[in-house]
Amino acid sequence: MNAAPKSPPGPLAITLGDPAGIGPEVILGAWVRLRAERRAPPAFVVGGLELLRACAERLRIDCPIVPIADPAEAIAAAAVGLPVLTGLDGPLTPARPSPDGARLALASLNRGAKFVLAEVAVGLVTAPVAKGALSAIGWDYPGQTEFLADACGMGWRDAVMMLAGPSLRTVPLTVHVPLAKVSGLLSSDLITHKARIVAAGLRRDFGVLSPRLAIAALNPHAGEGGQFGDEEARVIAPAIAALQAEGIAAFGPVPGDALFTPRMRGTYDAALCMYHDQALIPLKALEVDEGVNVTLGLPIIRTSPDHGTAFDIAGKGVADPGAMAAAIVMAADMAKARAAARA
Amino acid sequence: MNAAPKSPPGPLAITLGDPAGIGPEVILGAWVRLRAERRAPPAFVVGGLELLRACAERLRIDCPIVPIADPAEAIAAAAVGLPVLTGLDGPLTPARPSPDGARLALASLNRGAKFVLAEVAVGLVTAPVAKGALSAIGWDYPGQTEFLADACGMGWRDAVMMLAGPSLRTVPLTVHVPLAKVSGLLSSDLITHKARIVAAGLRRDFGVLSPRLAIAALNPHAGEGGQFGDEEARVIAPAIAALQAEGIAAFGPVPGDALFTPRMRGTYDAALCMYHDQALIPLKALEVDEGVNVTLGLPIIRTSPDHGTAFDIAGKGVADPGAMAAAIVMAADMAKARAAARA
Repeated sequence: MNAAPKSPPGPLAITLGDPAGIGPEVILGAWVRLRAERRAPPAFVVGGLELLRACAERLRIDCPIVPIADPAEAIAAAAVGLPVLTGLDGPLTPARPSPDGARLALASLNRGAKFVLAEVAVGLVTAPVAKGALSAIGWDYPGQTEFLADACGMGWRDAVMMLAGPSLRTVPLTVHVPLAKVSGLLSSDLITHKARIVAAGLRRDFGVLSPRLAIAALNPHAGEGGQFGDEEARVIAPAIAALQAEGIAAFGPVPGDALFTPRMRGTYDAALCMYHDQALIPLKALEVDEGVNVTLGLPIIRTSPDHGTAFDIAGKGVADPGAMAAAIVMAADMAKARAAARA
Repeated sequence: MNAAPKSPPGPLAITLGDPAGIGPEVILGAWVRLRAERRAPPAFVVGGLELLRACAERLRIDCPIVPIADPAEAIAAAAVGLPVLTGLDGPLTPARPSPDGARLALASLNRGAKFVLAEVAVGLVTAPVAKGALSAIGWDYPGQTEFLADACGMGWRDAVMMLAGPSLRTVPLTVHVPLAKVSGLLSSDLITHKARIVAAGLRRDFGVLSPRLAIAALNPHAGEGGQFGDEEARVIAPAIAALQAEGIAAFGPVPGDALFTPRMRGTYDAALCMYHDQALIPLKALEVDEGVNVTLGLPIIRTSPDHGTAFDIAGKGVADPGAMAAAIVMAADMAKARAAARA
C-alpha cells in the first residue's frame, strides 16, 4: 500500500473546445481559481495561445499565460502561469460559431487525444464543442466521448458517461433518445455491461474498493408490483441478480423519486439511471456548477465540465468556471489514483 | 385590500390515515412540533382518541389530547391540547394493516370530507392510506384525491396534484402510469386544462397574483430540435402558446435537467412536469421531509404529507413528522388566504 503522490505524474491536456463558446473563458477562470486556492494541478491547454490572451484581455481575467512548444515543458511552465501549446490557434469569436472555429476545436481534441494515448499527458479534460458546428464540417460523431472511444480502439458501448458532483454520481444508461423509446432500448445486458464498467472505474480511479451501485427503476413507484410497468421485473431485477452473483454490490430497482433523497444518497457510490433526465435532473438540481462528466471504460482518463458551449453567454464573462475547475481537479485525482496503484 | 387574519376562520380536519401506518405518530409529532414553535393552527383529528393515546404512550410523545364531541369545540380545545373527535376509534396496530384498520381510515376520511364540505372545518389534511388495504375492502379509487373529487361533485381530471416544498412546487401531468405510456397520454388539452387549474389555485390560495408556470419538456434537451422526440413541437409548445394567449405566464418547454437548477427555480411559481418522477425526483431531492401534496381545482382545501403509510417503520418512532407539519401549516395558510379574499 503506497501513499498517493501529491501531484499526478505528468500534466493534464485541456482541449480548447469551440472558440465561440464559453470554453476559453472557463479554462482561464478555472485556472485562476485553482491557482488562488493552490489546487491547480500541472496541465496545459492544447492550442489557442493568442485566442486565450485575447479572451483574458477582453474579460479582464488576470491569468499569466506561458507559451510552451512541447508538453514536456508544461510542469515547469505551470509554476509561472497557464501553459498553452503553440502552433495551433485562431481568432477569438465569442458567440459566433464558424467552420474555422469548429476545425480549431477538432484539431485541439485530436492532438489532446494523441498526447494522452502516447502518455505524454496523464489525462484529458475536454472543453465543450458544438455538435452542429462539427457536423457541418463533416465530423459525424454523436459526441466527443464516442470519438475518444474510437481513438482508443474501443466500442462506443464501452465508453460509459458518469456525471459526478461532490455528493452524487449518476450514470444514464440511455442518453440522447426519445423518452418513449427508452423502455425498448433497455436490456439486462445493457445494465450489467455498463454496471461492470462503472464498478471497475470506481475501483480503479476513485478509490472505492467495493462500489455500491443503486439501480433505478424505470416506472413510478418501481411499477408498484407490475401495476404500471413490468420493466422492473422483466429487465432490471434480473440484471441486479446477475451483478450480485458476480460479487458487485448492486441493489434496486429503487423508485426514481426515492433514489435521490438525502438519506438514500448516502447508501451508494453511483446511481445507474434508465434515462438521461433521471440522471441529470438530480445532478443539476444538487451539484450547482460543479458537475463533471467522466468517461469510464476507456484506457485513458477523460473528464469534461457538465455544460455545453453556451454560445448565448459566451464572451460576456458570466460563465461559471466551477464545473471546468472540478473537471480539472477530478482528472488530476484520477491520475494520482492510477499512479498510486502502479507504485 | 385586507390584511390576512392571523388565524384561519375555523379548524382544520385532520384524518387518521391507516392506523397501521405512520399517520397517527406523525400527527402527534407534527402537533407537538407546531405547538412548541407556536405555529399550530386550530385543528382536530377525525377520530382515533384511544388509538392516538396509545400511540403517544408507546412512543413517549408528550402530547396532551383533548376529546371533543363536535368540531365546534375544536378551537377552544386546541388551546389545551390536540383535539380529537370522539365516536370513531380502533386499536393501535403499527405495521399490521388489516380490513378493520382500512375501514377506520376510510370512516375518518369520509367524516373529514363531510365536515369540510359542510364548512364546519376550513380545510382537510389527510394522513396516508394504503391503496392495497382499501381495495381489499371494496374501495376502488386510485387514491384519496379522486375520492375527494367525487365527494365535491367534480371530475377526476379537475383535481390536480401539486407537490409543494419551501422552495419548489411541481405538478405531475401524468401520474401512476408506465413511463412508456406517458407520451401517448400527453395532449395539448391535458396541459392547458391542468395549467389553468394550477394558475387559478396559485392565485386563489397562495397569494401569487400572476403565476409563472414553467412547462417541462418530455425528451432530453427538449428533443434537440426534433432529433430525439417531437412531443415538444407537436404537443407542448402549442399548449404553451394557447396559455400565453389567455394571459397565463407559461413558458417552455424547458429541458427537464435545466428546470431544477437553483438559478432556474427562481423563475417560476410552479413547474408542470410530464411524468411522475420528473416532478417527484427534484422535490424529494431538495425538500427534505417537507413535501406537501396539495389538491388544486376542488372547492375545498386539501393537503397531505408527501409520503405513504410506511408500514415498515410504523410504531418505531423514527418517522419524520416534518411533512405532516408542513401540510397542516399550508392548509391553514390557504384557509387564511381565502378568508382574507372574502373579507
